[in-house]
Amino acid sequence: MGSTIIEKIIRNNVGKEVKPGEIVTVNVDRVMIHDIFIPFVASKFEEMGFTKIWNPDKAVLIYDHLVPASQVDDTRHFRIGNEFVEKYGMKNIHRSDGICHQLMTEAGYVKPGNIVFGTDSHTTTYGCVGAFSSGIGYTEMASILGTGTLWIRVPETIKVNITGKLPDNVMAKDIILKLIGDLGADGATYKALEFAGDTVENMSVASRMSMSNMAIEAGAKCALFTPDEKTAKYCEIELTDEQKDLVGDSDAVYSRVINYKAEDLVPVMACPSNVDNVKPISEIEGKEIDQVFIGSCTNGRLEDLMAAAEILKDKHVAPFVKLIVTPASRKIYRQAVENGTMEILSKAGAIITHPSCGLCCGRTGGILTDGETVVATNNRNFLGRMGTSKVGIYLASPKSAAACAIAGKIVVPE
Amino acid sequence: MGSTIIEKIIRNNVGKEVKPGEIVTVNVDRVMIHDIFIPFVASKFEEMGFTKIWNPDKAVLIYDHLVPASQVDDTRHFRIGNEFVEKYGMKNIHRSDGICHQLMTEAGYVKPGNIVFGTDSHTTTYGCVGAFSSGIGYTEMASILGTGTLWIRVPETIKVNITGKLPDNVMAKDIILKLIGDLGADGATYKALEFAGDTVENMSVASRMSMSNMAIEAGAKCALFTPDEKTAKYCEIELTDEQKDLVGDSDAVYSRVINYKAEDLVPVMACPSNVDNVKPISEIEGKEIDQVFIGSCTNGRLEDLMAAAEILKDKHVAPFVKLIVTPASRKIYRQAVENGTMEILSKAGAIITHPSCGLCCGRTGGILTDGETVVATNNRNFLGRMGTSKVGIYLASPKSAAACAIAGKIVVPE
Repeated sequence: MGSTIIEKIIRNNVGKEVKPGEIVTVNVDRVMIHDIFIPFVASKFEEMGFTKIWNPDKAVLIYDHLVPASQVDDTRHFRIGNEFVEKYGMKNIHRSDGICHQLMTEAGYVKPGNIVFGTDSHTTTYGCVGAFSSGIGYTEMASILGTGTLWIRVPETIKVNITGKLPDNVMAKDIILKLIGDLGADGATYKALEFAGDTVENMSVASRMSMSNMAIEAGAKCALFTPDEKTAKYCEIELTDEQKDLVGDSDAVYSRVINYKAEDLVPVMACPSNVDNVKPISEIEGKEIDQVFIGSCTNGRLEDLMAAAEILKDKHVAPFVKLIVTPASRKIYRQAVENGTMEILSKAGAIITHPSCGLCCGRTGGILTDGETVVATNNRNFLGRMGTSKVGIYLASPKSAAACAIAGKIVVPE
Repeated sequence: MGSTIIEKIIRNNVGKEVKPGEIVTVNVDRVMIHDIFIPFVASKFEEMGFTKIWNPDKAVLIYDHLVPASQVDDTRHFRIGNEFVEKYGMKNIHRSDGICHQLMTEAGYVKPGNIVFGTDSHTTTYGCVGAFSSGIGYTEMASILGTGTLWIRVPETIKVNITGKLPDNVMAKDIILKLIGDLGADGATYKALEFAGDTVENMSVASRMSMSNMAIEAGAKCALFTPDEKTAKYCEIELTDEQKDLVGDSDAVYSRVINYKAEDLVPVMACPSNVDNVKPISEIEGKEIDQVFIGSCTNGRLEDLMAAAEILKDKHVAPFVKLIVTPASRKIYRQAVENGTMEILSKAGAIITHPSCGLCCGRTGGILTDGETVVATNNRNFLGRMGTSKVGIYLASPKSAAACAIAGKIVVPE
């Protein structure tokens, strides 16, 4: 009997065949801790009696949620982080380079086939390069820092086949929103999502990343793409045979198979206030908006900013609309400066912020208030996430968001 | 008997010769209101019984202190501002274009010889183009909005002559800090500062702006530079005879005359926690720092960013140092993107924020905490201004700030 991708990754890690439901202890290849959780991880780590990190080179600390600080308490997290890094000899620390999930792949910390955990629910992101990655709490993280291991239950897999060519106004973001809408917020709980088909094969790693990033919104434990030549180039590696084999076998067992034809897909939005409340934009067209947010670890990559710039070129956002743009990393920021994207966006009226989590999690950079409506490219539209609990958040692709910014209302992108 | 510049501006406005100490009512050419004060101006305006703005085209509303919003309450200010603008037919509104003082001159709202008031203490800035401009409270602003006039006492004038060529590591910022140190925080209270000499004649309008911006830190009512060809080019006008005549007459009466030789000046800093606590950097060298801030309405212009970039090129900020860069306007941001300055700064590790007041007034964008030290190019180092009351703020020029960012401690720029 064949294996799914997640079964192969775990098998390669533990050295024996595994089946869904089995409990196994894996050796962790890399961990990511961000600034919000470092104080809790640090105190729990010492409370557990550990005196050294199992392998300091395998731990990465990233300041992103609170950079640049907008409250005095934010800086306390940096201080504790800096002390922890010094005390335990960590070297992989990023104090202002961008959003954690972007940096973990962009800076080469995650490779195909790796098992990676992070103190953030969107750690599922690294499945874009064929890694098993998932979010955990700070107690589990402290335990991994001490032992280098974690027990897991081998997930069942839902296979998602997508074939054909996407319409011009449909992006990878529309696919993942559609899937979350179809599955429901708990439709993939603790399961692995495995993406296949020529539509995803033809996608950039960046597009795959926006899909794996949001897998948790259907409850998935992880979301996996088969590593290919684009992955190899992105990760700056040659794929090993083991990595090339990270494809679901034809006789693998899936708990469910979902098929989409790319041609049938349309631009959609996740409407207030659940990610699975997904509707075609054509059904909600005309609603007036106050703000647009393009960026985050979901859609703050160069191709996203360029897609938005293509629509915003020589146009201007509607008078009352604030357009906030947040690249996912410093590297992306610099690429967008260099290729003229930032010039176009700034000219169109965009407020360009430093690459960080900022507005996505309601920390800073464009907080909204009662009665306001925002079209946003990030990953969650929960009540109160980007301002007060009376803000309506519509999640969309960068193309849809850019079109809405110009129109001052919800519109289908051309 | 001759006249000083401020006496000529007021004379031209009221149509008769004036003397220091005299009370006169002036016709206001332009007013500036920013987002912090618009709610108070709006309610006071209606409380006073006004039903229309004397001349809506002469009023400018600028959102800068709270852009992008970092707290829910910030957005309340935008809502009230938007309602006020709609209700009273204002057209000059900037929702995210940059810092008020930069925009007032850059966008052409202020011309040589104008009388301008704003709801911000650093409204003295517009003296850089030979305008009489000063900060007022929201009650006075509401009154001007209704009447178009304000009574003032004609200020006495302190003349400051600066001659010769500045050393390479000394900037206009060092001159104004030195002057504030020599005068003391109340040394020019309600007086006009009038700058003259070939050093200021050879300065860019941008450099003059960093000096007039800080005049209030010595208590000055305004700070004036004679309009010249550079001013005309900056304002995109031909100077009228009346504007060309805005020079202090040789037989004008000054309450005090101060002379500086540019060659004698050295890089200085205003040490915690008063702007007049000014010391040569050589006396305080070696103090470790946590953050550097380059930007604000004092030193966020293209020449400032370029001066910093020259020092930071192919270098990197010290590991624990956060370098925050805030251009003074969207236009400057775009110029700095276009000419490669932002690329250099970002590569050196800078956190580049949207053009706004942000960190300068402790709203967002790099707040500091107890025990931290910042070298900053803005205009105030008062206790608690950029974070907690236990932050040490050292005010400096962009060159000094950039050198400190690399060294991780206070150093004299090369």
